[in-house]
Amino acid sequence: MTRRRKHWGWGFEDQQPSPEEVEAAAAGARRHLGFAPADVERPVALEDVELRPSRLDPPSSLAHICRTDPYERVTHSYGKGYRDLIRAFRGRFDSPPDVVAHPADEADVERVLAWCEEASAAAIPYGGGTSVVGGVEPPGDRPSVTIDLRSMDRVLEVDRSSRAARIQAGAQGPRLEEQLRERELTLRHFPQSFEYSTLGGWIATRAGGHYATLYTHIDDFVESIRAVTPRGVWESRRLPGSGAGPSPDRLLIGSEGILGVITEAWVRLQDVPTHKQSAAVLFDSFESGARAVRALSQSGLHPSNCRLLDGDEAALTGAVPAGPAHGRPALLVLGFESADHELDAAMDRALELCLEHGGRIESEDEESSGGGADPSARGSAQGAWRDAFLQAPYLRDTLIAAGIFVETYETAVTWDRLDALIASVRERAREALGGDGIVTCRLTHVYPDGAAPYFTVLAPARRGDELAQWDELKGATSQMIEAGGGTITHHHAVGREHRPWYDHQRPDPFADALRAAKAAVDPAGILNPGVLIDP
Amino acid sequence: MTRRRKHWGWGFEDQQPSPEEVEAAAAGARRHLGFAPADVERPVALEDVELRPSRLDPPSSLAHICRTDPYERVTHSYGKGYRDLIRAFRGRFDSPPDVVAHPADEADVERVLAWCEEASAAAIPYGGGTSVVGGVEPPGDRPSVTIDLRSMDRVLEVDRSSRAARIQAGAQGPRLEEQLRERELTLRHFPQSFEYSTLGGWIATRAGGHYATLYTHIDDFVESIRAVTPRGVWESRRLPGSGAGPSPDRLLIGSEGILGVITEAWVRLQDVPTHKQSAAVLFDSFESGARAVRALSQSGLHPSNCRLLDGDEAALTGAVPAGPAHGRPALLVLGFESADHELDAAMDRALELCLEHGGRIESEDEESSGGGADPSARGSAQGAWRDAFLQAPYLRDTLIAAGIFVETYETAVTWDRLDALIASVRERAREALGGDGIVTCRLTHVYPDGAAPYFTVLAPARRGDELAQWDELKGATSQMIEAGGGTITHHHAVGREHRPWYDHQRPDPFADALRAAKAAVDPAGILNPGVLIDP
Repeated sequence: MTRRRKHWGWGFEDQQPSPEEVEAAAAGARRHLGFAPADVERPVALEDVELRPSRLDPPSSLAHICRTDPYERVTHSYGKGYRDLIRAFRGRFDSPPDVVAHPADEADVERVLAWCEEASAAAIPYGGGTSVVGGVEPPGDRPSVTIDLRSMDRVLEVDRSSRAARIQAGAQGPRLEEQLRERELTLRHFPQSFEYSTLGGWIATRAGGHYATLYTHIDDFVESIRAVTPRGVWESRRLPGSGAGPSPDRLLIGSEGILGVITEAWVRLQDVPTHKQSAAVLFDSFESGARAVRALSQSGLHPSNCRLLDGDEAALTGAVPAGPAHGRPALLVLGFESADHELDAAMDRALELCLEHGGRIESEDEESSGGGADPSARGSAQGAWRDAFLQAPYLRDTLIAAGIFVETYETAVTWDRLDALIASVRERAREALGGDGIVTCRLTHVYPDGAAPYFTVLAPARRGDELAQWDELKGATSQMIEAGGGTITHHHAVGREHRPWYDHQRPDPFADALRAAKAAVDPAGILNPGVLIDP
Repeated sequence: MTRRRKHWGWGFEDQQPSPEEVEAAAAGARRHLGFAPADVERPVALEDVELRPSRLDPPSSLAHICRTDPYERVTHSYGKGYRDLIRAFRGRFDSPPDVVAHPADEADVERVLAWCEEASAAAIPYGGGTSVVGGVEPPGDRPSVTIDLRSMDRVLEVDRSSRAARIQAGAQGPRLEEQLRERELTLRHFPQSFEYSTLGGWIATRAGGHYATLYTHIDDFVESIRAVTPRGVWESRRLPGSGAGPSPDRLLIGSEGILGVITEAWVRLQDVPTHKQSAAVLFDSFESGARAVRALSQSGLHPSNCRLLDGDEAALTGAVPAGPAHGRPALLVLGFESADHELDAAMDRALELCLEHGGRIESEDEESSGGGADPSARGSAQGAWRDAFLQAPYLRDTLIAAGIFVETYETAVTWDRLDALIASVRERAREALGGDGIVTCRLTHVYPDGAAPYFTVLAPARRGDELAQWDELKGATSQMIEAGGGTITHHHAVGREHRPWYDHQRPDPFADALRAAKAAVDPAGILNPGVLIDP
């Protein structure tokens, strides 16, 4: 029997802690964070969930790929944001999909879209279901079909000389890498959701991965895309580079399912790195660390990992020992990797730049990976941070049971505005928390012209009122991000939750152009309605 | 008095060779190429050109920025492709713009567009006028206004810490770099047309520049764009990176004036390089050179210059001494540059890769620039190649007078298809030439997954029948490029001349989406009609 994912939260049913373990971990977490003890709540069991009956009846030609049982509908109701988890935990599934379709191939996708058009149903493309912005949540106002692509998970073709592969969109991270490993190639795109998220989902949401510099988004790895729209197949030519009009790929990349269902893509691969170096550097302040990171990002050295954690974040993740809050240094996790050459010259120069900016080298490690979230890189000097990074989604489920509010906010902004934006988001988030809670910050990706700050907020949850608490925090932080000149999302996508700020951010004529483009390929407006734009 | 550009061909009126010099150079060129001697023709003088009277009368509010004199109309009739030069040389200007507008600011641009809409006139955005694909040629079927942006040429703002600047779209290469140099910054985007082409033109056409790897197209340097559409201003937020929906910038980049008039952009800059290394490496065959270049492109070393010239091209440009045709080695021009660090490790490893692939190091030069077309890098080891590169457009005018057909064809293709594509283009071009002529090839830009081959064809012109000769060659080479899986253009853009092959290349649903997007922002269809798409 295949393993089932739990009906709420992260992971599989068979890897969940026992109620007693949750109880102990929850108490420990509240203590660790300095929050007063609180009862541990239990999630509403799947069998106790009341679900609106399905309003759709799949045609017999599609019956074999369509499911309407409660488990399927419940597990496809939400992504994995805090709002999603809270609602799922409480057994609240107001707007589940009416049908979940599991296409086996592109012809199935075409048939499902044709049926949705006929039935005036919304069609929600679904990859790993790890959206944290409401990107896969069916709209409430009409019947909907969620199209789960995960049966389409194969590497179809490998071009060794160009280091590229044609891969089906539904391939989840581990499955994709496992197939590439046979050819000694790797995509090396490791978002935090890697275990579950899919190639198609990464492309549709402009996912941010492994590399902290240079190749930060999946965008850079896309050679061509094939997608099914209600008006035919959209397939670009495989090209290493082109100047032929606006890039057709770049219109699909980030389209979040509103233009078509991505079915496969040619992606650029890498040789498996054989040289790796990493280092940990401490800075007295986050600001001085950020100046070092700016120098690194403008040096042309292109470190694969270059993540700056503030003192609280470093202490939380166990990457540095916890000390008194005010004396906690910022931690730079620095790494280089190559499948071709030694990295001594690059690392030496990078550390020199760190020293010039007041850094203190905490450790250097030649064997370990500089690999960000690279799941293959356990047990190294930076293992504590990486393990914490990958375990965070699992931990979150326990935090919710423990009545702990946990949410992250991310953006990217030019260097000239970075310090002010971070300060204002921190301040405003603390204000919104009303004194009780923790706001940490790290830089997840860096560019020659700016950086991507990522905030984590932990606070005692207002039990039963978490959604309002979420709204307040989201409004407060997003307003500061907008005022500070940042993007409403660097790599979490827009979905439904970022819409108000995205609507301010995007140029109005572009919104008109995108709306018209959608109407051209999806005239009935069935594809993921409410995401990115209103019809 | 300001210097005037000549009314046909390249350069300024005051830098043209005398008739005697042309006579001598033309004879020399034919001899050098092994073509039989031929008469030298003289261009039709501007005062002998018969021009259709202007069909438009600018409103008085715009009169001060509008010109209708023959010089203005003639010099804005064409770009600088071979077809353009031939027609201009012969005094044939069938479809000149009726008016040339020189907006001083964005408000002028808005007023000109409003007037064009009212007058049902085509509006042709014009930068340096160096298009080689008919991108600035007014359509024949309606009155037209060419909007020459070159008065808007200032650097408006510099953000030193993010290394970015806000620059008006009409800034030509030298003027742009001169203003940046005051701040010790540089864009380092050096297309062959650098002397005349503009920032806005580079963005609208996805120009290819200086760097042979990594940052090949202007696309990578664009931080945000501001454009005037007939339905309002399209301005994106300055961001170092973003995951908020499909990139609005990427829809304008390559839009070739059909969506709006780009008025300014924030672009990413660099520090002026202080470390430079270059080398010349010889290979027995182009194919073995290409394998070395593939290894370099996949190494992660990111050379700034990595141009592979076949034996004929290397001999023609004087980069290697001419020998017997069959023994001419291919030449790799390799360079590294940095404003931050020493380049020994990178160059050593790069040369090692060359040796592993059968290369013979011809020269190494630590002082010289590895800077492609970098006009600041004269007199170095690779100076001969660079000078030839920059002088080519000037030389072309002489070739035309000498009755020599000269045209270039460029593409990009994945590595697995490279050898076959090059062989088929060479063969088909030679066939089309009917035996008499030269076809050379170089790789101008290289990627981990492919390369951009660039072909030059030189042949005795069929005097008086050059346009048919051009059609035959263009058809033959483009057909092979398409059949070989390449893009119809890597960096020359689409314009009107690449349309038949571009129409095959772009995904049909994308064409529909682009057409709809244009209709949303340019409902009257005034902007550069016939370029990229039909209404």
